[in-house]
Amino acid sequence: MTDKDYMRLAIQLAATTRGQTSPNPVVGAVIVKNHQIVGMGAHLKAGEPHAEIHALNMAGEKSKGATMYVTLEPCAHYGRTPPCAEALVQAGVARVVVAATDPDERVSGRGIEMIKSAGIEVIQGILEQEALELNEPFFYSVTEKQPFVTLKIASSLDGKIATCTGESKWITGEESREDVHFLRHTHDAILVGVNTVIADDPTLNTRLPGGGKNPIRIILDHHLRTPIQAKMISDNLAPVWIVTSPACDVNQQKEFEKRGVKLIKMDETPIRIKSLLEILFKEGIQSLLVEGGGVVNDSFLRSGLFNQVIVYLAPLLIGSQSAPSSFSGLGIESLEHAARLTFKNIESIGNDLKITAVRK
Amino acid sequence: MTDKDYMRLAIQLAATTRGQTSPNPVVGAVIVKNHQIVGMGAHLKAGEPHAEIHALNMAGEKSKGATMYVTLEPCAHYGRTPPCAEALVQAGVARVVVAATDPDERVSGRGIEMIKSAGIEVIQGILEQEALELNEPFFYSVTEKQPFVTLKIASSLDGKIATCTGESKWITGEESREDVHFLRHTHDAILVGVNTVIADDPTLNTRLPGGGKNPIRIILDHHLRTPIQAKMISDNLAPVWIVTSPACDVNQQKEFEKRGVKLIKMDETPIRIKSLLEILFKEGIQSLLVEGGGVVNDSFLRSGLFNQVIVYLAPLLIGSQSAPSSFSGLGIESLEHAARLTFKNIESIGNDLKITAVRK
Repeated sequence: MTDKDYMRLAIQLAATTRGQTSPNPVVGAVIVKNHQIVGMGAHLKAGEPHAEIHALNMAGEKSKGATMYVTLEPCAHYGRTPPCAEALVQAGVARVVVAATDPDERVSGRGIEMIKSAGIEVIQGILEQEALELNEPFFYSVTEKQPFVTLKIASSLDGKIATCTGESKWITGEESREDVHFLRHTHDAILVGVNTVIADDPTLNTRLPGGGKNPIRIILDHHLRTPIQAKMISDNLAPVWIVTSPACDVNQQKEFEKRGVKLIKMDETPIRIKSLLEILFKEGIQSLLVEGGGVVNDSFLRSGLFNQVIVYLAPLLIGSQSAPSSFSGLGIESLEHAARLTFKNIESIGNDLKITAVRK
Repeated sequence: MTDKDYMRLAIQLAATTRGQTSPNPVVGAVIVKNHQIVGMGAHLKAGEPHAEIHALNMAGEKSKGATMYVTLEPCAHYGRTPPCAEALVQAGVARVVVAATDPDERVSGRGIEMIKSAGIEVIQGILEQEALELNEPFFYSVTEKQPFVTLKIASSLDGKIATCTGESKWITGEESREDVHFLRHTHDAILVGVNTVIADDPTLNTRLPGGGKNPIRIILDHHLRTPIQAKMISDNLAPVWIVTSPACDVNQQKEFEKRGVKLIKMDETPIRIKSLLEILFKEGIQSLLVEGGGVVNDSFLRSGLFNQVIVYLAPLLIGSQSAPSSFSGLGIESLEHAARLTFKNIESIGNDLKITAVRK
């Protein structure tokens, strides 16, 4: 077993808690002494102990002289928990192997400094790329001060999201639709346009066999056309935020607020995606899943403000120019300005393909 | 080395001549004696010796007592060449291993019969599936009496073949465009709509670095709107056939015929794809590559008369409802009637994806 092997295990531990640690990143830790694993841990939930602490607790006295593998630099600040770097020093760990440093400016480099100055050997950068990808939305949003945006599309092989008569249930298979629920589980918030609410009255919650975390539900609704009877407004499954104009009817606004809906009032026509994302970041959203429809998708496309597109491609052809495309609206006029992506991952899901394409 | 290993080599030999043997299938043969390869061959061109004969010639006297591996049942009829089954018997081959039997009713089973009745051991069905796939268009057209039809699409990730202003050069990358030329090389004919001829004035020939076979070029042109100045009409690169109505202007028809164009006159409005395919099969076309545009693609989609779709998917998003989709026309109204396919092969080509989907 090499440093890489133990780090891979730490990364696997971290990956298991995707979706449940926000606003914190996922982190895994493994403690090894004399070629024996003596402690393992993962951060489970914000406010609860960090991965290192769980692993140290498991190892107990055996931490002394051991090597700690951790996917993210141990913290050095007093937040909701005391600094992990201090705990590592006190436990007498002899060697610390770190995958990625923390981009959070309260931590960045200081955790490693604290450990080194206690005379502990520190190795950095083992499986760094894997560790960065594990927390991509976290790192991106901390650095860029806006949420990591994923556009989700479910279309036929020829890019249609419904037939020309509007029939859309179902284009993709059951397995793909379940995978979308995992996407919801791992995102802080989900965003749709009001037309989707009016047409489908969706709940946008996470429906996984073993349960899951519901994302905050955000409706883009400039003219406050969301029906007050919409399921989301009263189902209490997760917060509902409506992005609307301050000019909208005050009584109507109050009706929504009475039901616990948060109104985000933006004085822009049309709403600029850039401003919207800045507001959402300030409200604590690190990762945003955009589930369209076509007009909302198109706004994000034209703004250029998205990080990746996940397309569930069904093996069927619908045809027709008038059948709704996955992106409607104005689109891109010149190929020079089309959003150039890179295919990052292709996966078979049931009979469908799941294609992940990222911004260059 | 097992029977499978030698047969795999025979299949590899056969695959090298794809595109150059039509109307014959590709066939490979390997002769093995005392664990040594003593002969190899592939059918190169219709009218020339079959694979078995090339291999027997290479083996010479060593054929006696050897094992012959051949991807397709040896022929038993006197065609352009004497029957291979007879040649095998005369060469004193001791054992014949066959991948697939010949669906051609002049051969089917008779070749194997002829060999068996000479007391030679015959093993059948080794790597049969691979051998059938190698000659899928050949087997399909011989059995169904119509060409094997491939629809080729080159689109953005959201299914667009041009921007809303009509810009289409280039959506897919250079590598994909070169791959299309290999498709042309391996098809008997290529079919486009007259709108494509008017808009792009294409030559539709095969442009591969090492050269290639040009397909017969077929234009669907009910009202005979093909410009007489179109490059294809006078470039002499390959035959041009125009599918048109007998009602079209006779002088105009003569102008085309004077230039060597074959006019296929169909008295149907609109042309039924079924009748068209029957005519093309009678004219010797076993494999047809449909290169659209959208309206022609849609006719094939609605007829249901296609065998596979090859989509070159570029990693970019164009958006807009009005940007041309890969299939235009009427499309499918109800999901129940949408063409259900199976993803058969996904391949990276440069930055693009090549997705092959086949009819269920």
